[in-house]
Formats: sequence, C-alpha cells, structure tokens
Amino acid sequence: MSRFWNAKTTETKPYTPGEQPSAGVKYIKINTNENPYPPSPKVYEAINNSCNEELRLYPNPEGLEARTAFASANNLDVNQVFVGNGSDEVLAMAFMAFYDNLNPIMILDISYSFYPVYCKRLDVAYNTIPVNNDFTINVDRFLEPSGGVVIANPNAPTSIAICLDDIKSILEAHPNNVVIIDEAYIDFGGESAIPLIAEYENLLVVQTLSKSRSLAGMRIGFAAGNPQLIEGLDRVKNSFNSYTIDRLAIVAAKAALEDTEHFTNNVNKIIKTREYVVDELKSLGFGVLDSKANFIFITHSKFVAKDIFMYLKTKGILVRYFDLPRVSDYLRVTIGTDYEMCIFIEKIKKFIEV
Amino acid sequence: MSRFWNAKTTETKPYTPGEQPSAGVKYIKINTNENPYPPSPKVYEAINNSCNEELRLYPNPEGLEARTAFASANNLDVNQVFVGNGSDEVLAMAFMAFYDNLNPIMILDISYSFYPVYCKRLDVAYNTIPVNNDFTINVDRFLEPSGGVVIANPNAPTSIAICLDDIKSILEAHPNNVVIIDEAYIDFGGESAIPLIAEYENLLVVQTLSKSRSLAGMRIGFAAGNPQLIEGLDRVKNSFNSYTIDRLAIVAAKAALEDTEHFTNNVNKIIKTREYVVDELKSLGFGVLDSKANFIFITHSKFVAKDIFMYLKTKGILVRYFDLPRVSDYLRVTIGTDYEMCIFIEKIKKFIEV
Repeated sequence: MSRFWNAKTTETKPYTPGEQPSAGVKYIKINTNENPYPPSPKVYEAINNSCNEELRLYPNPEGLEARTAFASANNLDVNQVFVGNGSDEVLAMAFMAFYDNLNPIMILDISYSFYPVYCKRLDVAYNTIPVNNDFTINVDRFLEPSGGVVIANPNAPTSIAICLDDIKSILEAHPNNVVIIDEAYIDFGGESAIPLIAEYENLLVVQTLSKSRSLAGMRIGFAAGNPQLIEGLDRVKNSFNSYTIDRLAIVAAKAALEDTEHFTNNVNKIIKTREYVVDELKSLGFGVLDSKANFIFITHSKFVAKDIFMYLKTKGILVRYFDLPRVSDYLRVTIGTDYEMCIFIEKIKKFIEV
Repeated sequence: MSRFWNAKTTETKPYTPGEQPSAGVKYIKINTNENPYPPSPKVYEAINNSCNEELRLYPNPEGLEARTAFASANNLDVNQVFVGNGSDEVLAMAFMAFYDNLNPIMILDISYSFYPVYCKRLDVAYNTIPVNNDFTINVDRFLEPSGGVVIANPNAPTSIAICLDDIKSILEAHPNNVVIIDEAYIDFGGESAIPLIAEYENLLVVQTLSKSRSLAGMRIGFAAGNPQLIEGLDRVKNSFNSYTIDRLAIVAAKAALEDTEHFTNNVNKIIKTREYVVDELKSLGFGVLDSKANFIFITHSKFVAKDIFMYLKTKGILVRYFDLPRVSDYLRVTIGTDYEMCIFIEKIKKFIEV
C-alpha cells in the first residue's frame, strides 16, 4: 500500500508465477510446465549469428521474421499473425483491444489464474462459469450472450481439452464478440483451432513457444486471427511499447518454428512419458484427469495434496499446488524427462508407504 | 476500424516509431537516436555464455541480475530499481501504476510523443503545458497542483536539459504525486536526478540501455525510485506480464552496465562529434538548440525542413521530421559516427548550394 498508487494498483492482486528456485539450489523442477528438453540447436546458431554490432539498432517493430515463420508453419498469411513478449503479453493486449467494462466476458472458474487478474487490472467486466464437477466444460453456458469468451484449450491447470465442434458452437453464438482460445498447451495432444480462422472472423488463437518449443527463457507468444483482430492488437502494442520482441528473440522464434523435426520428437517424447506417469500414478490409487497437455492434474483420496507437495519439496521436487477453492485437493505436475519422472514416482511411492 | 475493437482501441491513435529501413537497403540511419558504436564486447560474451539449454526455463521474473547491476552502477539498493522491456514499457507501467483519469497530470506540448498516447490508451487525464518559444521549459507552470508530472530530461525532440534545482522545485510542489523524469538521453551531458531519490519519495527516474549503452536491439529499460514506487510497478507488471525480460536480455544488461570504460568512451566520442556537427551547421546558417543528448534539433531560416528531410532521404540519409505544430520547421538528427556525420554535412552543403 502506498499513497502514490492509484486505485487499480492498490485493488488488483497480481498474478503469482510458479516458484523459480534461486541459482545454485538443484531441484527437479516440474512446477511451471517448462519443457525438459533443450530448444533446437538451430536456435543457438541463430542467436549466435545475430549476437553482433546490430544489437545497437532497434529490432523490427513488427517482429516480421518471427510472424512470417509462424504464418508459414500454420498456413496463414503474415497479416493474420501477431507476435508478443510471451503469450501472457499477447493475452493482456487482447483483453485491452477487444473487451471493456460494459459487456462482461465469460471465463471459467478453474482456468489460467491470470485471466481474472487481466480483467481487474485492465478494466474488463467478466462472469465466471463453473466447470463441471469432473472439471469438463459445460459448453452450453458459453452459448449465452456475452462480451466475449476466453477459454484455455487444453485448460490449465486441469489439462482437459475441448473439441473443435464445441469451439465452433461458441464462435457461432458470439458473431460480434472475440472468442480467445488460449492454446499454450495445444501441441501435446489437443486439436488447434487455427484452421477455423478462415471461417470465423471472431476467433483469436493464442500460442506460445515457451512449452512445446522449449523457449520459456526467450519470451515469445503469438496470436492468430482475422487481419482486423491483428490490427487491433497492433494498435494496442503501438500505444504501449512499440518494440516488445528483441533482436535475438525474433531470430530464435524463427529458428524454433522452422525445426519441425526437433519439435515433433520432443513433443512425442513428452506424450510418451506422460502416458507412463499416468499409468503409474493410477496404479498407486491417484485420480488423474485426461491430459492433453505437458502436465497432469492429480489427486488422491487418502492423502492431502498439500502434504504431498510439501513432502516432495523436501525431497528436492517442485510441483505446483494451488490453495484455491475446488482444486486444493489436486497437484499440477509438469511432465519432465523419463529420469525426472522416475524419481518423482519413486518419491511418491515412499510418501504413500510412510 | 473493426466491430471487434473496443472504444479505446478505435479512439487511440497509436505512436509512430521512427522509420526502420528494410534489410538490404543501406542508409545512414540517424533518425531513431541509436548509438553508432557497438555494445561492449562483454555483452556478446555474456549472451554466448547464456545461449544454452537453460533457454527452455523461464527467466527470473524480477530480472534480478539486471536490477542488481543497475543498482550497483547508481549507488542504489536493488529494491529501488525496476527493470522492463525498454523504457517505453517502464513508462507505460508507471502511467498505469500512479496516474488516473480524475487528477490530470502535466506534460509538455513538445516532448516525447508517446506520453499523450499512454494517457489516452491507459485512461490518464492530462494537461499540456506549452514550452517557451525558444523550447525551454517554463518551470513555474509545473509548480501548479496536478496529479503528477512527466518530463523528459533532456527533452526530446528538443535536446534541451533542465537543471536539478528546477526538478527539486517540481518535486517539492507535488509531495503526494509521482514526478517522472525520463532520462533516456541523460548520459550525453545532462545531470541525472537519481541522487535525489534518497530525498524525494515521489521521484521516479526512468532510464534505458538503448542509447548510451548501444542496446536498442535488446529492449532494456529501468526505473529508479523509492521502494514503494518500485513495488507499485511490480504490481502492474505482475498483473500484465510476469516475465518481460528474457534470459539473454538480463545478462546483456548486466554486462553492459558493468563495462564503464566502454560506456564512457562511446559517450565521449558522441559528445565530441556532436560539438563538431553543431559548429558546422551553425556556420551554414542553421539554428541549433543547445543539446545535451545524442541528437540535435535544427532549423534553417531559408530552407523548409521537410524539403531537407526529403532530399537527405534520396541521398541515403534518414533523419527524423515531425509534421506537428511548432516543430515542423525543425529536423531531429541523431549523432552518428564522425564518418556518417561528415557525409551528412556534405549533403547538407550540397542542398544549400542547390
């Protein structure tokens, strides 16, 4: 609290990112949905090639090379693509561009916890739609009139995906409002809505290179949609910060998007590991939601989630625990390497035996 | 215009950054106040050392290494320092944190043209104070009650600096409102207000590594002020985008801030070149404002500024022309290398002879 803060700054409780351990402390870090595998070697090459005298010059303000690579990877035109400093920034700018405080948008009660923070901070009215008791989404509720819709697909932290037919119904119910599908985790088993952009002017798909492309450290997110929507995002960006993506991030994005083989291999490895971990946990009596993401959402009828979380931390394993209504019996566990997940399973077994 | 944009998106005319020529076209680029000299070699070294597997992990959300280096370079505590994605983002977040639509802040009519854009986009009320006819600042006007003050020192695009005694008077006139001193160009001859932070809780000083540290391509800006103000900025950041500075930008910032010798040499070279260019232009009949920046603001009683701008462009030289009231007789010219400025002077001489 400070007399210098304005009302919104005082009132808005900020988002809390997952714990980042200090350098030096060695953890198995499966709490922030990072990719356990390194980025494409072509990323290093691209960065090294651009690490030169030109760093003194501003980057291309449109992030053109990165947008072109994303467009090309997704069969889009470059004017259907926006790039930002991570998908968090892209989302913030989308809330600023398309929503207001008169027409409440709809978000889920259990979803990415940044959405209500954006609403409060950026003066967007919203209604919260509860997920079903099994954490699936009641699509019918999203067909009611509203100022817009924001859905994470797969949803976080539940890991559950919805199908394109459901997304189509939602799009058709809101022809004059922007529907944001946040696909941060789409590459791990969900079906992307990007092909629907040609048909639906009101669809904005948000993706990131932080998860499936192993570039959380470089801060690159994208939005794909009708050129009108992209122009709206551009207007916001150019009223806030003209150059959000630095020179090295632009070339890193391009290189990562072009290396399809590296990407596919890593994603497949993670999916395989996920299936193994899910089977193991189920055999130990865990409830595991049907995951299409690089993380799983787990619960155990006999053990308190927070106790497991604390125990794992003492054993050098960081997972994510949300002390929030409806999910406090659950843990969100990122899928790491096979080795990391073996240790995780081993410690879980020890805990259960204790 | 689009039916999907909200009112603010439709109404707010975005900021227009200086022209960035496409790759391949060779210009003498003295239009966006970039540094003509490369960054410290230690920057390359730091980036190369961090261009590794860890790019898959989120950066430290507080940008701690960069903040520590800035604090150390300026005799501050780390909790008196905020880091953002360029000083534009830092400014945007400061407007969001401290100002509102009830208490108009004061900005100059001739100053960084992003300020009124922030106000419109971020719902901040403002009054415009005209600069004097010689482009100096009428400090008395800034002693009147207001919701806050934002002054660029040296001012852009005029290049004129104000002294610390004037800044003190302004700070004392607004004990309960934040006074932002935007010091993007301070290292080229102005006197920084950072030492006043100890005395004035309401002072926020904004700086950038884009100019004097030759890192426009890496997007790094700082704010320095009382820990209350820094906490306010943190709250905004964590309600917008938790990780704004990527891993490579963090280490680049640290390396650049630590190489004092490289910094001092480059700044001194630019000041020396500026004095030479100013003398030459004056001898050709130009009016040149007293510059404490890495650019100059020039006018000629016999020639139309826009004509000079267009002529130079055809000769491969980009300078900045603002088609705006009160400054349309002027050109803003960034100080490049001696060689670049010789060519600039040569072309100017040719134009005048024509």
